[in-house]
Amino acid sequence: MVLVTIEPYGSRVEVCEGSTLLHAIRLAGLSITSLCGGFGSCGKCRVIVISGSSKLSELSQLEVKHLRDSEIRAGYRLSCQVRAFNDVTLYIPVESRVRVGERRAVTRGFMRKVEVKPLVKKIRVQLPPPSLRDQRSDLDRLIDSLKTVVEESKVEVDYEVLKNLPTILRGSNWDVASVLWGREIVSIEPGDAFSESYGVAIDVGTSKIVVHLIDLTTGEVRAVGLAENPQLAYGEDIVSRMTFANISEDNLRTLQLLLINSINELVESVCRQAGVSINRVYEIVVVGNTAMHHFLLGLKTKYLSASPFTPVVGRTISFKARDLGVKSSTGAIVTFLPVIAGFVGADAVADALATGILSREDNVVLLDVGTNTEIFVGNSERMLVCSAPSGPALEGAHIRHGMKAVDGAIEEVSISSDGEVEYRVIGDAKPRGICGSAIIDIVAELYRNNFIDSRGKFRRSYGLKRLRKSVNGWEYVIAWSNETSIGKDIVVSEKDISEVMLAKAAIYAGISVLLRRRGLSERDISEIIVAGSFGTHINPLSARIIGIIPDVPGDKVKFVGNTAIMGADMVLLSIDARSEAEKVARTIEYVELSADPYFSEEFSSALLIPHKDVEKFTLVKALLNQ
Amino acid sequence: MVLVTIEPYGSRVEVCEGSTLLHAIRLAGLSITSLCGGFGSCGKCRVIVISGSSKLSELSQLEVKHLRDSEIRAGYRLSCQVRAFNDVTLYIPVESRVRVGERRAVTRGFMRKVEVKPLVKKIRVQLPPPSLRDQRSDLDRLIDSLKTVVEESKVEVDYEVLKNLPTILRGSNWDVASVLWGREIVSIEPGDAFSESYGVAIDVGTSKIVVHLIDLTTGEVRAVGLAENPQLAYGEDIVSRMTFANISEDNLRTLQLLLINSINELVESVCRQAGVSINRVYEIVVVGNTAMHHFLLGLKTKYLSASPFTPVVGRTISFKARDLGVKSSTGAIVTFLPVIAGFVGADAVADALATGILSREDNVVLLDVGTNTEIFVGNSERMLVCSAPSGPALEGAHIRHGMKAVDGAIEEVSISSDGEVEYRVIGDAKPRGICGSAIIDIVAELYRNNFIDSRGKFRRSYGLKRLRKSVNGWEYVIAWSNETSIGKDIVVSEKDISEVMLAKAAIYAGISVLLRRRGLSERDISEIIVAGSFGTHINPLSARIIGIIPDVPGDKVKFVGNTAIMGADMVLLSIDARSEAEKVARTIEYVELSADPYFSEEFSSALLIPHKDVEKFTLVKALLNQ
Repeated sequence: MVLVTIEPYGSRVEVCEGSTLLHAIRLAGLSITSLCGGFGSCGKCRVIVISGSSKLSELSQLEVKHLRDSEIRAGYRLSCQVRAFNDVTLYIPVESRVRVGERRAVTRGFMRKVEVKPLVKKIRVQLPPPSLRDQRSDLDRLIDSLKTVVEESKVEVDYEVLKNLPTILRGSNWDVASVLWGREIVSIEPGDAFSESYGVAIDVGTSKIVVHLIDLTTGEVRAVGLAENPQLAYGEDIVSRMTFANISEDNLRTLQLLLINSINELVESVCRQAGVSINRVYEIVVVGNTAMHHFLLGLKTKYLSASPFTPVVGRTISFKARDLGVKSSTGAIVTFLPVIAGFVGADAVADALATGILSREDNVVLLDVGTNTEIFVGNSERMLVCSAPSGPALEGAHIRHGMKAVDGAIEEVSISSDGEVEYRVIGDAKPRGICGSAIIDIVAELYRNNFIDSRGKFRRSYGLKRLRKSVNGWEYVIAWSNETSIGKDIVVSEKDISEVMLAKAAIYAGISVLLRRRGLSERDISEIIVAGSFGTHINPLSARIIGIIPDVPGDKVKFVGNTAIMGADMVLLSIDARSEAEKVARTIEYVELSADPYFSEEFSSALLIPHKDVEKFTLVKALLNQ
Repeated sequence: MVLVTIEPYGSRVEVCEGSTLLHAIRLAGLSITSLCGGFGSCGKCRVIVISGSSKLSELSQLEVKHLRDSEIRAGYRLSCQVRAFNDVTLYIPVESRVRVGERRAVTRGFMRKVEVKPLVKKIRVQLPPPSLRDQRSDLDRLIDSLKTVVEESKVEVDYEVLKNLPTILRGSNWDVASVLWGREIVSIEPGDAFSESYGVAIDVGTSKIVVHLIDLTTGEVRAVGLAENPQLAYGEDIVSRMTFANISEDNLRTLQLLLINSINELVESVCRQAGVSINRVYEIVVVGNTAMHHFLLGLKTKYLSASPFTPVVGRTISFKARDLGVKSSTGAIVTFLPVIAGFVGADAVADALATGILSREDNVVLLDVGTNTEIFVGNSERMLVCSAPSGPALEGAHIRHGMKAVDGAIEEVSISSDGEVEYRVIGDAKPRGICGSAIIDIVAELYRNNFIDSRGKFRRSYGLKRLRKSVNGWEYVIAWSNETSIGKDIVVSEKDISEVMLAKAAIYAGISVLLRRRGLSERDISEIIVAGSFGTHINPLSARIIGIIPDVPGDKVKFVGNTAIMGADMVLLSIDARSEAEKVARTIEYVELSADPYFSEEFSSALLIPHKDVEKFTLVKALLNQ
């Protein structure tokens, strides 16, 4: 083993001789930008070797390609290329630090209580050895001992398990632990391993991948892993990745392999964190949007990416992990939860599952905001879902100075009645731009102070110091150039405000259409549940002011964090949750907004702040008038 | 394509340019010795090139190793090594002709009538194309259309089928044929392929492999294939092959690959014969003894080969053909029928199935004679089975001039009261030895003429011309040296007779033990069914005289041929037969003869001709006295 020390964090991690530095960084639970997933093709995972450089593998051709001579002289290497054969100290420079700030990544969320009753069962049995009077086959002997757990005639057995069966049985003196996944025997081990039973839950997001290692005996989350989605190298948004995948089978395969490699590193990392052998992981439950689902399974996205947006498969699907190339126990299973439609994926199903909306008797709204915002409306009797085309503005994209919620992003803004601005920045840095939560704050604060009208246009009469006209139209200065790290003013323009309004109108209109279809009014909503990392960081009041969500009392709005991963946890832990997930996907009615006759009307009405029908926002109005 | 003409048969076959001559010979339906299965390691598949030699691939290193210079000059090549790039005429010399004479290979047998109701169903459906009002996934759309055939929530889908689904659906204008194997969709094809549905039945014998291509729509056998078991290179008998396999995993893998390669060539050959695409073969049902079962599945035989002879698995087992490397439709299934015990394999299960003994109300005996003879005794209420250690004498082995039933073997013998011998030889040849059926004739004829006593010892008093004493003891000349092709007398010794008696005693004792356990006497037997190629060629009277089987009237003995392959055919064709096979394996009671207290006593009693208790053989006695 060699010891890798990683600065500026001072993290130390032991890895096998010959491991890559990228592997060490990930094992240490630290993140580094690696768009290509460790293939040496993106050149982003740069590190500076501080000591121990003589015992590293030599400079690879890919490093020569990606690094300038001056950088090489300064000790720069690509962490995915260089292997450590002795102790080494390295430094992750700012430009390589991961852009999904750990601070903002939401790796947990709300989850209903479940009884620990997993589909994976690990049972220890002592078998009688064979004799001339008991010549049952090895398998029958094993299956007979499992009679109380699974009906004998229905048992199936993994081929690799079967091949190893005679050796394991005799090597452990007929005292064995068998692992059942439902009615299939997926592993057979010496008896003393009976208590080690694990599953992995994975939320494959468009920008990040979150992994939980779950102890299937106690129900505990034993370790958490997080990585950037390596497909980012092929586009930030799903559409551009699907476009790339649609060009050729090789491209699709590339996107699939990127995910699989990243998942493998994460699975190794969480197992390592918890001191658990990867051979004790028997099921991996994956959630993600429909495109991620198709990419991971290597299914064509050609027909998903164009109207009428048809997925290849929707229902829960399980494959051998080894057939997909996912590391785990030899006979382990990868299960992808069901998807509802092209733009309502397994992540939304998991949201619904974790929050338990399908067993609510009162009427709830559940939304998970993103480029497409999944919206559920209804109760246990009837639940509708749609995907609203909210676009990326609420995540900071398509905004002049917009950026992701990473170090240097203004994340919170308040504007006083004299037009002065106070803001908070992520990380110990000067501001570089504005992230989604701040954009919403800004629009809400400008409106609250009456600096913009309900159409989002600046009222020029005020003569505000920060309001000015540029070649791009009217804009408001949030940070002066001398405060920023980019050497120029950070501003919000009328066009930016308009982008935010398009986004919020889409979401609000989506909710309205579903309420109408469901025969409900906003007064009937007893709770609005906001899932996902977006909801975790926005100022709820700002969201209400600009009219993203219906105007309900603040205590009726609940932010639940990453419920997608929690839904995956639940399915691993409970067979009841697993069948409920299938029920969610089957019974929830999908509404295609683009085919709804009222959507465009609702959308226009919602294009004002807070709404064309101000009577709908009396609570907000009252708040503003306080 | 190039034309290959094969002499002395005058067969012509077209093959792709670059095909091996071995491939051409097999395609032509002809057999050639190929112990290694075409790897160039046995050097047995020699052919002589008559014309076209200039357009063949050059002499390989393996050919140089296996052929003498003089042979090379004479045009000898190894057919597995040489590839044809233009028309060629070749000659298969006698020494390369397959040792399982086609004349003696039994590729069919008796089979009960079954209703054609296969597990493989091929259904043509016209699907509605997707629209914004019907956004079901491709798979759900397909499954919904199959509702009347299979319960929607239980359908499974092969991963490779899923990957091709979107392309096939759209490429065929939503008119598709789906193939279900039970509840799994194993293929999806353009609608016009709906009538082409095939299965392959395979009987993997210790010495030969028989293949049937079955039309799953009509139930017809469309083509028959036959090859030597290529494992013969690793020993004629099962025990020596298991010994080889037990040495290392590589050895086991070698034996597995030999079988798989041979099966692949046979599957290709039968498909070619019938003009059927290999992609339309959806299930392959295999029978064979327990060792062949383990070899084909790559399962350890270590514990099968020693007491208490424990198989790894007994029950019916199905895998993806592609996981085993067996050629067929991408999603096709290989099913190995259940085995009952270490020495009662799936071939015996298939015998029981094809003959229908389990639905007989009267009591029957079914036997399949080989090195181990499987014996069934009973009726629908209770059926017992055992494996009698009959040894290879009845197949011509362990006999001084014994040989297999191939060209040059004396296959039928009669001896007159003056001691003179008449015989018939297989093929147009001088005799080289004596095969199993003739050995039985000889012992029966010697006994009938009173030349041997009931202990199998020659009565020297007669002064017979052909009886003499050699260094090996007393022997009887069957063919004088001038009649034979080996230049010396072909004889049968007292030791040979003793080998036959050991064999017949084991079989008879096995039957006796089962009758006793079942509470039956020989008088209760209403039929003796003899399965396998052995039974097809012996003289039933000779068998009765020496006491291989109980002394029942001749019309109660039925020879049914290769019922093992027919049982496999039945399972392909009928779901009822499939569940009956499972029932056979589960309900038939296995009796371990070596653990039975009466076996050795019964064995001793049967070591006389016809038996110690001559009262048991009154019918035979009456016949002899006629």
